[in-house]
Amino acid sequence: MVSVMVKVAPAYEVLIGKDILKSAGTLMKNVRPIGKCAVITDTNVEKLYLERVLSSLKEAGFDPHAYAFSAGEEHKTMETLTDILDFMSEIPLTRSDFVVALGGGVTGDMAGFAAGVYMRGIPFIQIPTTFLAAVDSSVGGKTAVDLKNGKNLAGLFHQPSLVITDIDTFKTLTPENYACGCAESIKMGVISDPELFSIFETGDPSTYEIEIVRRAVQAKADIVQRDEKEAGDRKLLNLGHTYGHSVEKLSRFTLPHGHAVAVGLAMAARAAEKMGDMDANTKERILKTLEKNNLPVALEFDAREIYQSSLNDKKMAGSSLSIIVPNEIGRCEIRKIPAKEFEKYIELGMQ
Amino acid sequence: MVSVMVKVAPAYEVLIGKDILKSAGTLMKNVRPIGKCAVITDTNVEKLYLERVLSSLKEAGFDPHAYAFSAGEEHKTMETLTDILDFMSEIPLTRSDFVVALGGGVTGDMAGFAAGVYMRGIPFIQIPTTFLAAVDSSVGGKTAVDLKNGKNLAGLFHQPSLVITDIDTFKTLTPENYACGCAESIKMGVISDPELFSIFETGDPSTYEIEIVRRAVQAKADIVQRDEKEAGDRKLLNLGHTYGHSVEKLSRFTLPHGHAVAVGLAMAARAAEKMGDMDANTKERILKTLEKNNLPVALEFDAREIYQSSLNDKKMAGSSLSIIVPNEIGRCEIRKIPAKEFEKYIELGMQ
Repeated sequence: MVSVMVKVAPAYEVLIGKDILKSAGTLMKNVRPIGKCAVITDTNVEKLYLERVLSSLKEAGFDPHAYAFSAGEEHKTMETLTDILDFMSEIPLTRSDFVVALGGGVTGDMAGFAAGVYMRGIPFIQIPTTFLAAVDSSVGGKTAVDLKNGKNLAGLFHQPSLVITDIDTFKTLTPENYACGCAESIKMGVISDPELFSIFETGDPSTYEIEIVRRAVQAKADIVQRDEKEAGDRKLLNLGHTYGHSVEKLSRFTLPHGHAVAVGLAMAARAAEKMGDMDANTKERILKTLEKNNLPVALEFDAREIYQSSLNDKKMAGSSLSIIVPNEIGRCEIRKIPAKEFEKYIELGMQ
Repeated sequence: MVSVMVKVAPAYEVLIGKDILKSAGTLMKNVRPIGKCAVITDTNVEKLYLERVLSSLKEAGFDPHAYAFSAGEEHKTMETLTDILDFMSEIPLTRSDFVVALGGGVTGDMAGFAAGVYMRGIPFIQIPTTFLAAVDSSVGGKTAVDLKNGKNLAGLFHQPSLVITDIDTFKTLTPENYACGCAESIKMGVISDPELFSIFETGDPSTYEIEIVRRAVQAKADIVQRDEKEAGDRKLLNLGHTYGHSVEKLSRFTLPHGHAVAVGLAMAARAAEKMGDMDANTKERILKTLEKNNLPVALEFDAREIYQSSLNDKKMAGSSLSIIVPNEIGRCEIRKIPAKEFEKYIELGMQ
């Protein structure tokens, strides 16, 4: 088991290991007093891992209460959030109790949101069960639900008290879902960790999962520690996401998030090369590495469509927006441009 | 117009004056850049003051969009919050825009909650139109909605960027509602401001409204600045509220909040006298001052009922709770007691 400290206030530990789900209760005893907790999961993960986590919590002396919502991004809504909050108040959880998020990004986002507003905030613990959630959403404290008019439009920053990642849970992922974790990890490599990138460029990620999660989490922690609430540097984590969210939306969310980010990252690399921000060789390395890891680098959308779709994206503050420009593997910059200039970047990123 | 600064990070101003609603837009220009805003109000306040505020915002150059939800505490729910968030995203508001809460405590609590989670937090401005909201909920950043199982169970701390209180709006309040503002102000006097208390003890509050609001807000600001998130001293503001919430609940919320607080404050004073924490003369002064201001000091509930009801109160963290004990006019203390000992305090507070 390895550990990464995320040094926000208060600091918390990300534990990464093999077959550590059965020790979850014991690990939680180091950060929470014995008491009640609500374990929030979805109907898919419920069948796979809930019993193991509940047993471990009970063995450690906790009093866990489980709630499974219907699996799927379409249930990441205010209505499901309300059901979770009603469940918590029915137990009832008090201010000294806590929430456990057992599942992928949707579960972590909603359980974290619920914990962040229940009695104006009680602690929560993340147990990501997907590669994508392990390398990305389980760390950093962003929580959210979707609204009718867009993804992740309501939420808050609420840091977990502990993150427990058991890489054995990745075994039950579909190849498509596994590739999503690769996409976000490759993105982190391009932002700030060339060695992380090279695992995907030259190696077989499935044999380096602990190392990949450790590196991706460490890279993200380094940024989140500097800028917890995304006033500046944290925007770097949006590399590939401004394009990515738009293509995700255009696909009516049939394209998995990680695949959209891969397309977005490829677009950012092409645009950067054409603008003279990155050399051609680096661009090629990024595209090849994405393809090698079963990820798409282009889609059949029109630049104009992507632009129109992105105009409603929440990252557009007023009439200008920040885009993330990759310079080399391990170095990117934040560039503020007028919203209308963004169409040019999209066109340059298309092919 | 007088001003109180609330020195949290970032600091904000509370402006109190006569007939200043028509200048709301100009006042907002000092704290927000010209852009869009959502004005959230209820169907009662809509008829009285919405047009005046919208005109003032437009004159100042803002682009206001109004939303009125059905008036009443029974609509302070996750469902109404969801409607407000959908409305905001339909406009759509961006991160540089803001929310205006125009109304009483219910409106401020919900609009503040919505602003606090929309895109993980955008600014909001309070325009309280009740005496109660002006002296209490509009300042300090507590936001909330009710859940099925209890009041204010979901919410977050989100400080406003500005508070604009026009005392002329108090003229449209019922005597019962006006008395609610008196109750919270008398409470603030007992906590830390003997001169504020003496206005209610000897004078006619309706001729001192600006001074009352200024003093109550200053007293609250002094406490909130020391302890924004209620880890310690802010608990003082709960004087009368632990009893108060219970009697409010027992009345099935037919008893207005301020009246419940008055009963709670009277109970706290009686219990304090019997426990030797306060002299008999001070207790009498508190009871008489409440009665002089058309507030109840006793109700027909049983001590056992109040105790049972309070056990589910959110202020009970685990098996102990903090009660606020008044010592003299202007000085109170926080006392942590085992939950079961609370019944004794209730009994002592009954007559």
